[in-house]
Amino acid sequence: MLNKRMITLLSDFGWQDVYVGVMKGAIAQINPQLKVIDLTHQIPPQNLAAGRFCLMNAFSYFPRETVHIAVVDPGVGSQRRGVAIALAEGYLVGPDNGLFSGVLSVSPAIAAVELTNPDYWRSPNPSSTFHGRDIFAPVGAHLANGANLEQLGTAIDLASLVEFPLASLSVTDKKIVGAIQYIDGYGNLITNIPANALKDKRWSVAIANRVISSHQTYSNVEVGEITALIGSHGWVEIAVNGGSAKFQLQVDWGDPVEVFWSIPNV
Amino acid sequence: MLNKRMITLLSDFGWQDVYVGVMKGAIAQINPQLKVIDLTHQIPPQNLAAGRFCLMNAFSYFPRETVHIAVVDPGVGSQRRGVAIALAEGYLVGPDNGLFSGVLSVSPAIAAVELTNPDYWRSPNPSSTFHGRDIFAPVGAHLANGANLEQLGTAIDLASLVEFPLASLSVTDKKIVGAIQYIDGYGNLITNIPANALKDKRWSVAIANRVISSHQTYSNVEVGEITALIGSHGWVEIAVNGGSAKFQLQVDWGDPVEVFWSIPNV
Amino acid sequence: MLNKRMITLLSDFGWQDVYVGVMKGAIAQINPQLKVIDLTHQIPPQNLAAGRFCLMNAFSYFPRETVHIAVVDPGVGSQRRGVAIALAEGYLVGPDNGLFSGVLSVSPAIAAVELTNPDYWRSPNPSSTFHGRDIFAPVGAHLANGANLEQLGTAIDLASLVEFPLASLSVTDKKIVGAIQYIDGYGNLITNIPANALKDKRWSVAIANRVISSHQTYSNVEVGEITALIGSHGWVEIAVNGGSAKFQLQVDWGDPVEVFWSIPNV
Repeated sequence: MLNKRMITLLSDFGWQDVYVGVMKGAIAQINPQLKVIDLTHQIPPQNLAAGRFCLMNAFSYFPRETVHIAVVDPGVGSQRRGVAIALAEGYLVGPDNGLFSGVLSVSPAIAAVELTNPDYWRSPNPSSTFHGRDIFAPVGAHLANGANLEQLGTAIDLASLVEFPLASLSVTDKKIVGAIQYIDGYGNLITNIPANALKDKRWSVAIANRVISSHQTYSNVEVGEITALIGSHGWVEIAVNGGSAKFQLQVDWGDPVEVFWSIPNV
Repeated sequence: MLNKRMITLLSDFGWQDVYVGVMKGAIAQINPQLKVIDLTHQIPPQNLAAGRFCLMNAFSYFPRETVHIAVVDPGVGSQRRGVAIALAEGYLVGPDNGLFSGVLSVSPAIAAVELTNPDYWRSPNPSSTFHGRDIFAPVGAHLANGANLEQLGTAIDLASLVEFPLASLSVTDKKIVGAIQYIDGYGNLITNIPANALKDKRWSVAIANRVISSHQTYSNVEVGEITALIGSHGWVEIAVNGGSAKFQLQVDWGDPVEVFWSIPNV
Repeated sequence: MLNKRMITLLSDFGWQDVYVGVMKGAIAQINPQLKVIDLTHQIPPQNLAAGRFCLMNAFSYFPRETVHIAVVDPGVGSQRRGVAIALAEGYLVGPDNGLFSGVLSVSPAIAAVELTNPDYWRSPNPSSTFHGRDIFAPVGAHLANGANLEQLGTAIDLASLVEFPLASLSVTDKKIVGAIQYIDGYGNLITNIPANALKDKRWSVAIANRVISSHQTYSNVEVGEITALIGSHGWVEIAVNGGSAKFQLQVDWGDPVEVFWSIPNV
């Protein structure tokens, strides 16, 4: 019993309604001993980019074999596939709509199935609107209970998994042009520029017609001051010590960001 | 140990304060091994209709014998009774103010007691304002631990349990007139018209001077378009694909909704 | 396994992002069987007074030996110390910035260490911005697993722990002058005047140029009416039955409050 795999949940269901609780009930009906941890349920509604980012940055902090169930699912009830995917670190269960492509860019899929076997669903007649409860939670619970991936459905070609790519980077000797890929609850701006793309020298950021110097951490600047830094996720990030960079710069998801090494003419 | 009953919690406490955490602490002091799942703690403050709806739609997704502790309690500290109720599927613990009448309309009470035995409370002198911590959480934990209903207090007449009825339906050959009973976090409008009241033919909805066709699921209409459907709860629901029906129609809790089978003169 | 200590988490991380989930993952990587309860993650960003209040009012409702990990950490990455503190009731783990001084005013520290031993961290090179994940969660998990305080780092002088004192009370024969120390999610105003400072007779409150009578509980006044009472935390509190005292009085954190026994000239 103690050797079972654990489960994480990520969704855009929010906390107002009982949707998250009911998914946990569907899991507990299969095995009340399974441990479930919430990653977040406040993905902005149907925002695949945010879901992709959050899952990519969280999955590696869990025990091996963890089953990550993720439901950001604008196409529920349509022809989009439900899938389960095996990685070196664990399993992914949810809609095949690109939500998993962030994780897969870091940790390649080893095998994947389409969820075609109703023996592992809540019932053979799932609702049209809540596959989280009727398919993904039960399938994830069975997987955590020790089911094999192959039992859950038909093997699929890994190359056929839907991609939701990050905005691409433009990299030259002088600068890297990227974009804001996520804005967290503090208003910190997380770009799509990874720390390992930075050269080993002093760098700055240009965003919203401002130039912002980089520091080691928030508290290297005064309260209310803005700084660029390498965030805990490993991406270039822009933050205000004790405040919101989103608010101070009036920027939004997808806005362009430049990292550079010599002062440009801005 | 593994055979203990599990517990769910529902309240209007929100997540800002430590009220929910403290209820879980009070449970853990009795038995740290009890499993607790949150249904929701964002019932609008003291909104019995919302609490009634959420509990009614969630309780059947949990293992048998689950103990559901629910605290939406505008009368705390007054003469309203605290109760524990046995159902075929499990137990209900909380104030006797109608919060449980949705569940009981679907799954009749088998037995009920007033919580008069302070041996199962946190202390014989509970606070006047937080019976969730001082009475309901401890009583629910003891019940999950295997206590018998009869030990918790004095048996009460099932007919005396307070009712909080749904708005009634007006049903004719041509139409059903009901109301919005709940608006979820997406802005989906959940009516009090159950799926099984629909005839087996094409139906539409009239609301806010508009006529809205029904479809199988959200994604059968374009993004931004409105549709009626049978929601995952089993009620007639009005939703916007990728948006908020509440916002698009400017309606609110309790507003009237008609389901009809022939096009009326609207 | 069943005798392990449990863990609580308190932070200002909010629920939008995966920060809380990732802390739980870091704990589960050390021991997936450890039980974790959230106190709250909605402390206003970097608000030490609110974190101090919430922890002080929650810690005593948990089993003995519980490990409370708290992260409200404006100085992360600076020279502020990370600490673990032993109390009669359990352990505290987090930044040494006054966050724990509320608990310590009620339950004195028995021993404390600075977290200098990287063997108990996630890695010897923690990030500069997320010690919750990289230091405090792993240290807390090891402590819950049975590690001794002394193993975690260097013993420190208890008198050197940073204090974040409550606003002081002015007490005379006629009145007590205090302040609002916390406003909860309902808009209830919790003062820094403890119940045991009240004389055993009828008392009233003066706030925002109004005089407010005290009652036993919310429901002793009509819906929409304001009352003073002893709240479930044990502090003098001002509340509106079915409404928000913060909104009705237009007051804020830190505003002055008087308790008096004879009617003053207000």
